[in-house]
Amino acid sequence: MSKKISVPTLKRLPNYYNIICQALESGEKYISSAKIAQLLDIDDTQVRKDIAATGYVGKPKVGFDVKEFKAHLEEFLGFNNTKEAFLIGAGNLGIALAKYDGFKKYGLDILSLFDTDPHKVGLKVGKKEVFALSKLPDLVRRMNIQIAILAVPSEVAQDVTDFLVQSGIRAIWNFAPANLKVPDYVLISNQDLAASFVVFSSLISER
Amino acid sequence: MSKKISVPTLKRLPNYYNIICQALESGEKYISSAKIAQLLDIDDTQVRKDIAATGYVGKPKVGFDVKEFKAHLEEFLGFNNTKEAFLIGAGNLGIALAKYDGFKKYGLDILSLFDTDPHKVGLKVGKKEVFALSKLPDLVRRMNIQIAILAVPSEVAQDVTDFLVQSGIRAIWNFAPANLKVPDYVLISNQDLAASFVVFSSLISER
Repeated sequence: MSKKISVPTLKRLPNYYNIICQALESGEKYISSAKIAQLLDIDDTQVRKDIAATGYVGKPKVGFDVKEFKAHLEEFLGFNNTKEAFLIGAGNLGIALAKYDGFKKYGLDILSLFDTDPHKVGLKVGKKEVFALSKLPDLVRRMNIQIAILAVPSEVAQDVTDFLVQSGIRAIWNFAPANLKVPDYVLISNQDLAASFVVFSSLISER
Repeated sequence: MSKKISVPTLKRLPNYYNIICQALESGEKYISSAKIAQLLDIDDTQVRKDIAATGYVGKPKVGFDVKEFKAHLEEFLGFNNTKEAFLIGAGNLGIALAKYDGFKKYGLDILSLFDTDPHKVGLKVGKKEVFALSKLPDLVRRMNIQIAILAVPSEVAQDVTDFLVQSGIRAIWNFAPANLKVPDYVLISNQDLAASFVVFSSLISER
């Protein structure tokens, strides 16, 4: 990514991308910011600002060239640079994430799962195998993997994180509801589902 | 909730709440915004602004009274008003969400699961039963449930949503990667995991 862009804008870009893909499939050549805004039920000005922030400019009165804009967004968001990741925890959440189709489109490729439970080791989730967690350090080195997705119970999350960091993992997308400590050179991003619920819940209360 | 508060602030409040709970458990009487900021690795000023936005004021030089602040946050975030919800889709994601311990603390109580698959109907997830989706309208009415959590495949998400709305559901927390249409009087909040990945991925690219 060439320049800093705000997190709320970043979160909206995949929505624009989905709409562009649909437009391309239905044979549209151009799409306006007003149309995108209407489909997503957000403000037209917001859409134009977000797209401008990616450095893409539409054609006056016609809008955005669908093909060109799609390629631009893919480049901007790095969808073409596949990011290979290991997924830790083959519980329900881990399996749901491993099966989730939406990731590959965005350049995330989950290669394998890891678990400490001997009953899970050797299982297949789609085409992905579940390995013993003890195999991880060796596989991280041999395959040069830097990203881990953490879907383990919160009680063990810190221990597993320490093990991941020792094994050479440098970026962790954490789904466990726990504040994990990592060294400065490791990136950690928390997907706190409970925090998302608080936002949803407050929207309900406001109505 | 008594007044408008920004979404980023709302998302941080549960983190403060977790820290306050830990402080209470370890017997601390007061906690400073600097300490909270340090534990969460965010800016002290941000912590003070966020807490001020909830209407709570600490004591100069001592900080926040842990017990009092905890009660204030619970009230502010509506944790004491339990929100009962039905969960639609007893696949891996649905089961993971139904088992997720973190929700109850925040006032979300998932009562039952629903699925169209006859092999899943009658199963128990913890103490929660999986019912046939066809039973939902009657149960919504009898139990006066307004909230549904949607964890179904995207291909069927719109049909299921229409069915939920017809059945009387008024707020939907959607985990399917789909732009769903609902009438204006229904609240929908999308939990787009792929969009979250885009944010994580861009943070990796920036390093």
